[in-house]
Amino acid sequence: MALRVLQGKIEGILTVSETIFDKILAGEIPCDRVYEDAHVLAFLDIFPLSRGHTLVIPKERAATLDALSDEAAAALGRVLPRICRAVQRVSGVREYNVLQNNGRGAHQAVFHVHFHVIPKPDEHTGLMLEWPSGRLEPAEARPLAEALRAALRELDPTS
Amino acid sequence: MALRVLQGKIEGILTVSETIFDKILAGEIPCDRVYEDAHVLAFLDIFPLSRGHTLVIPKERAATLDALSDEAAAALGRVLPRICRAVQRVSGVREYNVLQNNGRGAHQAVFHVHFHVIPKPDEHTGLMLEWPSGRLEPAEARPLAEALRAALRELDPTS
Repeated sequence: MALRVLQGKIEGILTVSETIFDKILAGEIPCDRVYEDAHVLAFLDIFPLSRGHTLVIPKERAATLDALSDEAAAALGRVLPRICRAVQRVSGVREYNVLQNNGRGAHQAVFHVHFHVIPKPDEHTGLMLEWPSGRLEPAEARPLAEALRAALRELDPTS
Repeated sequence: MALRVLQGKIEGILTVSETIFDKILAGEIPCDRVYEDAHVLAFLDIFPLSRGHTLVIPKERAATLDALSDEAAAALGRVLPRICRAVQRVSGVREYNVLQNNGRGAHQAVFHVHFHVIPKPDEHTGLMLEWPSGRLEPAEARPLAEALRAALRELDPTS
């Protein structure tokens, strides 16, 4: 538990630290650029899960999606469909997953927000998922949804 | 292969068909609403991978992300961080995955765009991923990135 707290503190420090993506954004490390505008950069993942695996990142520095501004998130969201269409066209693969991981335990490796666009050519290639879902009971659902609505209003009064 | 072509045709028809999410958007089927604005609805997944698992969908009807308009995608992207913050607060879990699946082979079950926000409380709960990544060789990367940039310009001349 103490280790987990320490890890949290270290990650808290890392959230404001430079990552390899800052160096890519600054042009200090090269990338295979797919798309760029004032707010967003997209480039090929050098460790792809399938051919065409592309990363889409905000230029704004944020370690995790919850730390991203409305403006940066909207700009990134806007171009995702465009990038997906290009990845479909060039990979020749119609199906794909879009994944964005937050925290080391959730498979995040670089602490700058990035959306993966991963073609899924067949069941053995691309993102491999398990889906051990449960069932949400109505008695649990109502207070949970209420708490989420209240948290949204409290954290973002304009929501 | 013929089966695959047929499946593609059927899914092509389904892309313009009504799904259960249309019925939720129309208020014909209830949901545990987390957030709503003019363009976006968020509600609890009734088959959650972990407590707080929330779906974020555009009101615009699109089966897959590549079919979504710029405007709907921007509106959805803008609110994702807000919803992530509320899910973190209420679940008490800091780490999470954001996942959006396109196509049956990529684990899509409802053919209306939806982003999953899935808390990752521990290694045995939440989204379970395998990451069998390869290595992108520079000789392959350059023409691939060029082809993607060309496809973006061709498919979306304003890109």
